[in-house]
Amino acid sequence: MSPPPLRWDGERLHVLDQTALPFEERELVLASAGEVADAIRRLAVRGAPLIGVAAGFGVAMAAVAGEDVDAAAALLRDARPTAVNLAWAVDCVRDAAGAGPDAARAEAERIHAAEDAASAAIAEAGAQLLAGVRTVLTHCNTGALAAGGRGTALAVVRALHGVRVLATETRPLLQGARLTAWELREAGVPYELVVDAAAPGLIAGGEVDAVVTGCDRVAANGDVANKVGTYPLALAARAAEIPFVVAGPTSSIDAETRSGGDIVIEERGPDEVRAAGGAALALPDTPVRNPAFDVTPSALVTALVTERGVARPVNARTVRALLETPGAR
Amino acid sequence: MSPPPLRWDGERLHVLDQTALPFEERELVLASAGEVADAIRRLAVRGAPLIGVAAGFGVAMAAVAGEDVDAAAALLRDARPTAVNLAWAVDCVRDAAGAGPDAARAEAERIHAAEDAASAAIAEAGAQLLAGVRTVLTHCNTGALAAGGRGTALAVVRALHGVRVLATETRPLLQGARLTAWELREAGVPYELVVDAAAPGLIAGGEVDAVVTGCDRVAANGDVANKVGTYPLALAARAAEIPFVVAGPTSSIDAETRSGGDIVIEERGPDEVRAAGGAALALPDTPVRNPAFDVTPSALVTALVTERGVARPVNARTVRALLETPGAR
Repeated sequence: MSPPPLRWDGERLHVLDQTALPFEERELVLASAGEVADAIRRLAVRGAPLIGVAAGFGVAMAAVAGEDVDAAAALLRDARPTAVNLAWAVDCVRDAAGAGPDAARAEAERIHAAEDAASAAIAEAGAQLLAGVRTVLTHCNTGALAAGGRGTALAVVRALHGVRVLATETRPLLQGARLTAWELREAGVPYELVVDAAAPGLIAGGEVDAVVTGCDRVAANGDVANKVGTYPLALAARAAEIPFVVAGPTSSIDAETRSGGDIVIEERGPDEVRAAGGAALALPDTPVRNPAFDVTPSALVTALVTERGVARPVNARTVRALLETPGAR
Repeated sequence: MSPPPLRWDGERLHVLDQTALPFEERELVLASAGEVADAIRRLAVRGAPLIGVAAGFGVAMAAVAGEDVDAAAALLRDARPTAVNLAWAVDCVRDAAGAGPDAARAEAERIHAAEDAASAAIAEAGAQLLAGVRTVLTHCNTGALAAGGRGTALAVVRALHGVRVLATETRPLLQGARLTAWELREAGVPYELVVDAAAPGLIAGGEVDAVVTGCDRVAANGDVANKVGTYPLALAARAAEIPFVVAGPTSSIDAETRSGGDIVIEERGPDEVRAAGGAALALPDTPVRNPAFDVTPSALVTALVTERGVARPVNARTVRALLETPGAR
């Protein structure tokens, strides 16, 4: 039995080091906001919802330790720029810390429990929407390693009966090859791994019934920023007339961002592209562009599945309706 | 000065081992049809036109050595299934061998010279078509390492004044990261490397003026089979309303294949996906799909640039017109 992706012992945060998977199951023990920020920055902890949960515990640890909570919050907020859950969770715990360290800790625990519950609700709503689908293609990692509970898009996939999965490897950091493949194997779900570039051709060839991905940030108009390579899957799904479904908690919706064009796309360092699995793929001084995300226009998204319901079609009105649903954040 | 990708000394074939680039410039000396077939099979020699040239010399070596020419031709034909140049060149030299080994050698040399000339003509026609374009995105390797002369799509790119290039890495075998980057560096053309999945988002973001790729096989209706990952680039180019141009010799057109749906897509072994640059990316028994090519419908192709002229739009009529141009094969 593998250790869980994230466990809070009341004082410290235990996380599975996602940079070591699938070859090694190594647990990290994070004891301060700085250690949490570092783990987020180097992707030992990743996935928009899980980053938010971890950062919340980071702020709580700063409050308990009597550190400057605002400084810890700022440090954690800046660890990754694109996911909105991070800023949201950090702000929630920072605000709670005004009432003392116990309140901060309780708020971080509440966020963790809420993400677990959201995952279960997303899985149920998504499975209802996609009932009968046999072959699903998914991108990046959106399972338990990315979120509370069983995750977002991968939780939907795992809730489908008799499903088989095509999983993209997700260059440059190979979250699909390393993490999604590991989770599907552990769960006993049949799957095949493909290079990212092969997915659109397999979709066009009629081999895929639906594409399901997560989301790092959803703009007010429903445009979706997600792991780089999501957009071509949406284009291919539209051309093949199969559903392209995005799954994520409402904490990923950023009502302050009007449209996809306003989303800051994180550009990561060149060495991620120059290498894979520790092996050099290109000469060391090769010039590189390395955007970590791309934007899929809402018009290409068949449905947005959240813990508060499904937006379908996806547009400013249906996204606002999700946010106005009682209990949504 | 690096050795040329392919050199015939009158008896033996000298090729740059493309599996060793860019880290090592290692020359292989191939002395028999079997050695040529092996080099083609393991991608030491690759690129549809260059495969044809090499295979032609392979048949000629069999004829000169007094071996069974039909058996050698069959062996070489079967080394790779998708590119049509291979079968075409093999058949030409096999037929010539009926008149003796000298005729076979002369025919192989003629094919080599014809591919060099085709490359120059393609570069000129493509550069005229794309005059003024500043940033070009290209996929896989279609330069001197893939064809005679300076290549096909990359020859077009290199003929554009003041151009800069976005080159996709081209998983699984990384022909872009290893070969295109190496050629552009040697040629002094400014370029940046991107993972395959990042290209469509950069196109959507307005960072690319045109996409230019090669072709492994063009069907009679203009559908294009090319390196896996070409189709999503065509989809993204169409959505962004920029040209998607395919460049290749008329020897890549297969009039016997009615449409893209009739093209056999080579499925390669799983270890290519499980690893990169010698490093394991996934657990060794990970199930894999590994199609080497995909099909781009002719409706998404702005123009097909050949040594005999440009088809634009690309359809059964304009492709037939290319084949009926005097001098075309």
